[in-house]
This record gives sequence, structure tokens and C-alpha cells, in this order.
Amino acid sequence: MSQPTSTLRSFRAVDVIRKKRDAVELSREEIEGLVNAYTRGEIPDYQVSAWLMAVVLRGMTRPETAALTDAMLRSGEVLDLSDIAAKKVDKHSTGGVGDKTSLVLAPLVAAAGVAVPMISGRGLGHTGGTLDKLEAIPGFNVNLPVSEFRRLLGVCGCAMIGQTAEIAPADRKLYALRDVTGTVESPYLICASIMSKKLAEGIDALVLDVKTGSGAFMKSEKDAAFLAELMVETGERMGKQVVALITDMDQPLGNMIGNALEVVEVIEVLRGAGPADLRELCLELAGWMLLLGGVASSVADGREQSVRLISSGKAVERFQQMVELQGGDARVVDDPTKLPQASHVVPVTSANAGYVSAMQCEQIGTACVILGGGRERKEDSVDPAVGIVLHKKVGDSVSAGEPLATIYYNHQGRAEQARKLIVASYQITDSAPKIKRPLVHRVIGKSGETH
Amino acid sequence: MSQPTSTLRSFRAVDVIRKKRDAVELSREEIEGLVNAYTRGEIPDYQVSAWLMAVVLRGMTRPETAALTDAMLRSGEVLDLSDIAAKKVDKHSTGGVGDKTSLVLAPLVAAAGVAVPMISGRGLGHTGGTLDKLEAIPGFNVNLPVSEFRRLLGVCGCAMIGQTAEIAPADRKLYALRDVTGTVESPYLICASIMSKKLAEGIDALVLDVKTGSGAFMKSEKDAAFLAELMVETGERMGKQVVALITDMDQPLGNMIGNALEVVEVIEVLRGAGPADLRELCLELAGWMLLLGGVASSVADGREQSVRLISSGKAVERFQQMVELQGGDARVVDDPTKLPQASHVVPVTSANAGYVSAMQCEQIGTACVILGGGRERKEDSVDPAVGIVLHKKVGDSVSAGEPLATIYYNHQGRAEQARKLIVASYQITDSAPKIKRPLVHRVIGKSGETH
Repeated sequence: MSQPTSTLRSFRAVDVIRKKRDAVELSREEIEGLVNAYTRGEIPDYQVSAWLMAVVLRGMTRPETAALTDAMLRSGEVLDLSDIAAKKVDKHSTGGVGDKTSLVLAPLVAAAGVAVPMISGRGLGHTGGTLDKLEAIPGFNVNLPVSEFRRLLGVCGCAMIGQTAEIAPADRKLYALRDVTGTVESPYLICASIMSKKLAEGIDALVLDVKTGSGAFMKSEKDAAFLAELMVETGERMGKQVVALITDMDQPLGNMIGNALEVVEVIEVLRGAGPADLRELCLELAGWMLLLGGVASSVADGREQSVRLISSGKAVERFQQMVELQGGDARVVDDPTKLPQASHVVPVTSANAGYVSAMQCEQIGTACVILGGGRERKEDSVDPAVGIVLHKKVGDSVSAGEPLATIYYNHQGRAEQARKLIVASYQITDSAPKIKRPLVHRVIGKSGETH
Repeated sequence: MSQPTSTLRSFRAVDVIRKKRDAVELSREEIEGLVNAYTRGEIPDYQVSAWLMAVVLRGMTRPETAALTDAMLRSGEVLDLSDIAAKKVDKHSTGGVGDKTSLVLAPLVAAAGVAVPMISGRGLGHTGGTLDKLEAIPGFNVNLPVSEFRRLLGVCGCAMIGQTAEIAPADRKLYALRDVTGTVESPYLICASIMSKKLAEGIDALVLDVKTGSGAFMKSEKDAAFLAELMVETGERMGKQVVALITDMDQPLGNMIGNALEVVEVIEVLRGAGPADLRELCLELAGWMLLLGGVASSVADGREQSVRLISSGKAVERFQQMVELQGGDARVVDDPTKLPQASHVVPVTSANAGYVSAMQCEQIGTACVILGGGRERKEDSVDPAVGIVLHKKVGDSVSAGEPLATIYYNHQGRAEQARKLIVASYQITDSAPKIKRPLVHRVIGKSGETH
């Protein structure tokens, strides 16, 4: 075990660990001290991992959570976008299967006059990542310097990049440690990780899409609502307008899963088509973003404006502009065959007739990972062409032998594995499911109460 | 953060961490796997510290505790003392202030025909350590190779050394990590640490002295009894006879605190004199050791044999022999001035008349550390000459201006700090305390029930 560089600091770190272990509330100074010393490399991983486990098992108070978020936020650069006149609003999703709303929302909301400075992540495990989807567009560059990000925001009203080294370095270091020490699963740590990165974007308001269901990290609505409330309160304590929508992830969102396929579906929605659930969630989230962005008088007004921007073609034009400005092949908008294409397709057929009464959503995401469309480990590369197109979703009737889905693949062996998983993930019953889960379960946040 | 050498192993470690975090019982294989991989350096400190914190907060079942003890025990050498015909019995104390019973017990019990292979530790914090006391005797060598330890046991019936690199290396590595990660305070981890080292001595039976009170690690009797039961059950699961005595540490044991001073008091007791409490505890522990060692028919018989060995001079002779065999100046037995002497003494007087109704025992230990007689950090060196002689203990009457204690010191500034602490640790009241805490609170263990 390497010795900490400063005995005094090490001693303090042990005290902070012991306090959290004994469920004593930590002061803002103690939390800041720990985060700053860790970011600077002055206290070792083994002390911080013990502290993280104590946080997982003891929890945090709201002031502690806000102090942690603030310390992580201020561990790096906070973007100053004050030279952009429009309000800056972002959206963050806790991740799911087939969730491509960010690619629809950034250009759509920008077209309505709200700036969307979106810094996103990559997929991990069964969930996809916005950056992977963007990179399915040939040439699209998500690694822009902050200066260029700022310039594009001014030109186009939206820009979509990956996390830079300057933003919340404490989160990057802490997340890497959490990943290998069983300390990912804590609403307090998840809240601080998400909110520190988002608030470093220099935004005025944030719409959170907290997923719940079999394809979400928070399987239960109770857990999702707890995290949502925590993030909303933390954002408000830091002077931002924050609203959280608890939305359904008991089945994939839309019909397409896989990076290039999801871009196809994004373009469909931006053109006024696409599957109803994806379109509906995009409009609802856009409605909130326009309301918080100060250009709509209500969510309904925001939705109506969004519908008009889609039908007038302004939304898809803004998407095309963004793709071009970030170096991508903008021809994909009119010709999706310019996107990477899988070399083979194979249908997944149903053995029985009946109704789709449920789907194991996480398994569908895992099937896409098996095809090569996602990552099991951070260092894995992703095949943009592969994926799954669903033909049947919950409530649909199906005949024996009818295709449930189509697999787009490049490796035979993987396709067979994925097929088995997809078949198993469909629950087919004789009668149609009685209860239809709503797409938006709840809205959490003060801003939500007043409108 | 350095990468683990084996991704597969790292993955398994995370699974074990997560299971413990979620309060799922770990299998013997999982615990063994973790301990062995850590001892071999195959999993990093930061994973083990997260696991340790999960153990602190989730606890362990009895089978888990036994599996951890066993894995730590088998991480190194287990002494084979089968060539020594006598039963091998050791005593372990959880540590306190003025507790010098080991130095009395090893020669006394050996003189009764029971072998005592004693491997001890150093003092840390407010508690003293057996090795430091032994090293106050000029020349005494506690760093003997195992072969010499075994030889001396055969010759003298007892030998007292420090932990060797070969014994329970997993404990040494884990303890160093626990010390800096706030994970010392867990009865399960304390049990595994103590029992793995003691059972590696190749003993047949063990008498545990679990301290409780203001000078003990376990301040409450409930915590002390819990740890005692845990250690007794763990030892029995591993096929050893184990008895635990819960004994009082609400005030120092005996009157002398400080390494050379404690040797003086040990010699007094071995000569049949010394303070009543120390003498009584030594006889009680010796009684149990003789019973478990198969040379006494009952604890009372063991006590009587011990009294005879003291009055006949055989006990002190055995001590003298042990000192000589381990390279120490055996003349200290007849001439305690051969022990290191402090350059100054100063009395600590009472401001008020009345009765000593309580003592903050830990503060007395800390005063000795301040004088230089103990360690705040493992790397500190110890001054063998300094210490405190108590003239008043709980229940004693005191006049205003009468000495409560005498400080033996080598540094003026430290003496003044120590004096303040000692004064503050004495609680003087008008009337004598009504309740006298017994020296032995309880005996725990099946062997205790049958006799």
C-alpha cells in the first residue's frame, strides 16, 4: 500500500470516513476537503473507496448531497455561456434501451430559440449512449474543444459533445473507482455524478428523464422517484430550475435499437413520423424544455411549438445543420443508406400466437451488446451498424411464425445468441395485457407544480 | 488507480463486495478467494477497503467469521508444536491500561507444566503492548526465529516473541489497511484478526481476556460480551478450547503504567506482592490456563497451584530463566534499578479532599503516551523509562494536596501536559462510590460452563 503524500491529510480522511461510517452528518468543508484532496491525488483510492461504501450503506442528507455535487462540479471548469443570449436548457436521461430522445431534442429545442449545450456519455452495459449514436453518422466529431462547442452553440443553438477533461474531473475519477468497488448503486452518488456534470455546462435549467422499469437502472418506481426528488432538490439548492419526469422503460423506447438504426428513427421523428411512443416522449420533454427555456407559456404550448417546428421542417433542418457543423455527413438525413449498414439480417419469429404481454427490456439491450452494438467494458469498441428492429411491442397481437423483430448483424454466432435472448425476452400470452403503463408516470419538481 | 493484474479476479472481487454490501452471506470459497488474492497482491487495496467497510456496516454471520479467521490463519505458517508433550495454552487480552498480566502468566503457567507459546503485539494509542514492556528489560530479544522460539519453549516452557512475517500475513496486510480506512472497529474483523494469529501458534486452548470500561476498546459490557462470544464460537468452530473472561478496565490494572515500571510491578506479583487487583486477575487467568492445560482439576485448583508456585519462588525463577534465555539482563529481577530510569519525577496532587469515585482510564493511558511511553503512530519509538505510578484508585479517600500519582518523565513540557490529563481523569466526590465493579464480570465459553 502506497503511503499518502500527507500524513495530516490522511488523518483527516480517516476522520471523515469514520464519521460517515457512524452516520454522522459531514460538513460542507469535510466533503469539499475529501473531493479536492482526492482529485489532486493527495489521498489514496483505498480511503475513498471505504468512504464511498460508507455512503452507499449510510446514505447522505440533502445538504451533504448538495455539498458533494457542488465540490465535484467545482473540481473542474464551469462553462460560462453568458455571452449566449438565449436561455440554456439541457435534458438528461438515466439511460435505457432505444432511448434516442437527445438526438431529437437538441435540434428541436434549439429551433424553438432555446440553447441546448449537451454534454453526453457513452453506452455501458445494456443501455446505449448518445455519443455512440452520434458517431454512427460518418465523420461526426463529438470531441470538440470547449471553444468550438461554445461557437457552435452560438451558430446553431445546439451542440453535442463528449465529456472533456476539464469538466468535473472529480466525477471521472470517482466513477472509475465506484465501478470497481461495488459503489455505483447509491442514489446520492448517482445524483452527485449526474448533477455535477450537467450543472458544469453553465445551464439555466435542466429536464431530467428518470427511467423506471425492466430496462432501467432503477427498476422500481419508488427508487426512480427517490433519485428524481434528490436530483431536483440538489439542482434547486444550487439555484437551477430542475424538473424530473419519471418515464417508462419497461420496454424499449421506439422500435429501433443499435446506433445507426437509432439515427434512422431520430430522423423519422424529426420528419414527423416514427413510432408513437418515441414521438410522444420527445414532444413531452421538448414541451418542458421550452417552458423552462422561457419561450413557451406552458408545457402544452411548448409541445405545440415543437409539433409546428417538426411539420415545417425546421427541426430536421437544424439537425442537418448540427451534423454538418460537427463534421458529420449530413446526407444521411435524406439518404439513411449513407449510415453504416449491417451485412446480414435475420428475423426473430414467434413460436406461438397470442399477445405480447411484457418484454424483458434489459435483455433486449443485452442482445444489442452481444451483436457488438454496445459495450460490456468501457474499453470495448462498438459496431455502429448492428442492432435490432422490433416489430411487436407490449399489447400487440402476434401469429405463430410471425416476426417479433429483425436482427441486423455482422457475425453469425452473435446473431444466434442475440436471437435466443430476444425470443426469451418476449412474454406471449393468450389474452392481451389489461394494464397499459403510461409513458410518463409522474413529474417531480416545483416548476412542475406551478404549470 | 493501478489496474488489477487479472481482470477476471477483479470481476470476482467486485461481486464479493456487492454481495456483502447487499447483506448476502458469503461462501467460504468467496472469503478464501478474497483473502488469498489480497495476500498475493492480486487484488488492489481499494477493493478490499470497500469490502471491509461493507463488513463493518453489514456484519458477518458466524460461518463467515470462522471462514475469514481460517483463511487469514492459513495465509501463513501454522506452528507445529506437536513435539512438545505439554498442552499448549495461550492468553490474549484485547488491551488496556496497565495490563501486564502476560508477563506474569507466561512463566507462572509454564512453571505449572503447561507450555505457553506467546506471540504478542506492540502498544498503539492509549493501550500498552507486551513487546514494549519486555523490551524495557535491557537486551531482551522479542525477534526470535521460529526455530529458536520452539527450542526455548522446550527448555523453559514459555517464550514471548513478536509476530513473525510467516504468521498470518493476511492479517498484517489487512490490519494496515483497516488502520487507515476507518475499518478497525468491527467485532467480526477484530475476532478474525486476533483468532487467526493466536490459532497460528499451534495451541490447544486459549484464554481470552476481553476488557470493558473506560480504558478498553469495548467501552460497553454488551460490546465486550458480543466480541467474546464471537471469538469463543470461532475458536470452537476451529476445534480449540476457548474461554473468555470479561474483565474490568474502568480504571488501570495495578498501579504502574509505563514499560519499565510495569516490569517492576510484574516482578512484585511474581514475588507474591504487588497490587491486589493485578494479583487477583493474574491468579484467575492462570487458574483457567491451568485448567485448560490439563494440569488442574478446576479453576480453583489452578489458582491454588499458582499461589504455591509464587510463594515457593518457582514462578519468579521461571521468569528469570525466560529473560536470560531471550538475551535479557536477568539481574533486573533482583535489582529493578537495572531497568531504564526516568531522569525526573513529579507528584500529581489532588486539589480537593474526598473520594476517588471514577477514573477516565483512557486518559491515563494517553498521559503515558504523551510522556513518550506509548505510540500515537506505529512508527513512533517508545521511551521505556517514563510512566505513571498511581497512589489512589477508585474508592480511595484523598486529602487536599495529597498525591494522586507520580509522573516519571524525561521532558518537562510533556510532564505538564500529562499532569493536566491525569488530574482531569480523576473524579473526586464527597462520598465514597457505592458500587464496586467486579474485576471479572463474566466468563463466556462452554469450557466455563462445565467447571
